[in-house]
Amino acid sequence: MKKKGVVLFSGGIDSTTVMAIAKKERFEIYALTFDYGQRHSVEIEKAKKIAHDLGCKEHLFISLALDTIGGSALVCRDIPVPKDKKTRKEADRIPVTYVPARNTIFLSYALAWAEVLNAEDIFIGVNSIDYSGYPDCRTEYIEAFERMAALATKAGVEGKVHFKINVPLINLSKAEIIKKGVELGVDYALSHSCYDPLPDGKACGRCDSCRIRRKGFQEAGVEDPTQYG
Amino acid sequence: MKKKGVVLFSGGIDSTTVMAIAKKERFEIYALTFDYGQRHSVEIEKAKKIAHDLGCKEHLFISLALDTIGGSALVCRDIPVPKDKKTRKEADRIPVTYVPARNTIFLSYALAWAEVLNAEDIFIGVNSIDYSGYPDCRTEYIEAFERMAALATKAGVEGKVHFKINVPLINLSKAEIIKKGVELGVDYALSHSCYDPLPDGKACGRCDSCRIRRKGFQEAGVEDPTQYG
Repeated sequence: MKKKGVVLFSGGIDSTTVMAIAKKERFEIYALTFDYGQRHSVEIEKAKKIAHDLGCKEHLFISLALDTIGGSALVCRDIPVPKDKKTRKEADRIPVTYVPARNTIFLSYALAWAEVLNAEDIFIGVNSIDYSGYPDCRTEYIEAFERMAALATKAGVEGKVHFKINVPLINLSKAEIIKKGVELGVDYALSHSCYDPLPDGKACGRCDSCRIRRKGFQEAGVEDPTQYG
Repeated sequence: MKKKGVVLFSGGIDSTTVMAIAKKERFEIYALTFDYGQRHSVEIEKAKKIAHDLGCKEHLFISLALDTIGGSALVCRDIPVPKDKKTRKEADRIPVTYVPARNTIFLSYALAWAEVLNAEDIFIGVNSIDYSGYPDCRTEYIEAFERMAALATKAGVEGKVHFKINVPLINLSKAEIIKKGVELGVDYALSHSCYDPLPDGKACGRCDSCRIRRKGFQEAGVEDPTQYG
């Protein structure tokens, strides 16, 4: 019997590659996608198609009320998404697109679902190289979450399940992630990265996420299938 | 200026007492209440009244999709809520009313809100004495969450904020909690505990939560204001 894996899946390059890796490792995939009031809800439709194409067993969509809590340009329309960052100082700072405690909330839901499914493995596409500077994308954070998860759950405490947060991209650059995905047959044409897409759904090409994506394809020597506006 | 505190608040005895304690300690209170598809939504209305009476500054309600994830008698109507537990074995086991990773999801949202508010303190009414046997009500779990929180957030990583999960009830019995609340002037008539209230809103008197509540009032020597069906 295949092992079950809960894959946090936004439909971007990273989580699409993670799903392909989980598939390659012969996991039965349970995809978990959040709509957290973010402006790029076009992601959702494309995410459905990708997950279906990768043969995932179940795909759960959860609406989060992070827009109620606010505090990020991704969920709060009165903070502009930064474009065309120039200065070193701007590039070093944790950006305003950081969503407070986002990965913690995502992983908590994944943990709940994993416990219900009796799955040990959770997959998340964080990486600490081309990662925009978010604190909840680092190894020490993931390890702390894992330790907490072991104490948080009935299945963990009863010793039935040893939850593992799989982070197969943690040490890869965006270019390496793309190369890996291409190797696994991923079609990135459907994947979506832009924080602030144009009304026609095309990527803005100028936000952090578009810039990292573009550079990744260039460095990987892979043609970028993205339609930029 | 008062310190801000995010209080996880269900409107039950424990979280009501915690809110009174936070008030006594001169925190400006930001109450966070979840509706997680649980059958006892009558809690919500009473919770509003209690929080208002205790002078909380803001009260945020968040709908969670835990009923989609399932796995608990509290969110999933096809698992019956256990009544009148008799055997020792039944009493020792982690009950089916355990909601997978519930406190982890609750604390994750509290952490997100605390970061946005620039608050250091989160309050949660867990206790490890009369606690129904849930793993996420123990000190070692809370400490692991705190360590994870320090690594999860922009404010934590930048050293601006040291998040603290306050668990003022952790070592108190239900009777001691009730005595403490009465001392602080809490009116428990509005607080709600029943997992499975009758159609008229009265408590069932037979689920774990009702039994623990009843026993608590008896042992505290305080008159139980609950209307049992």
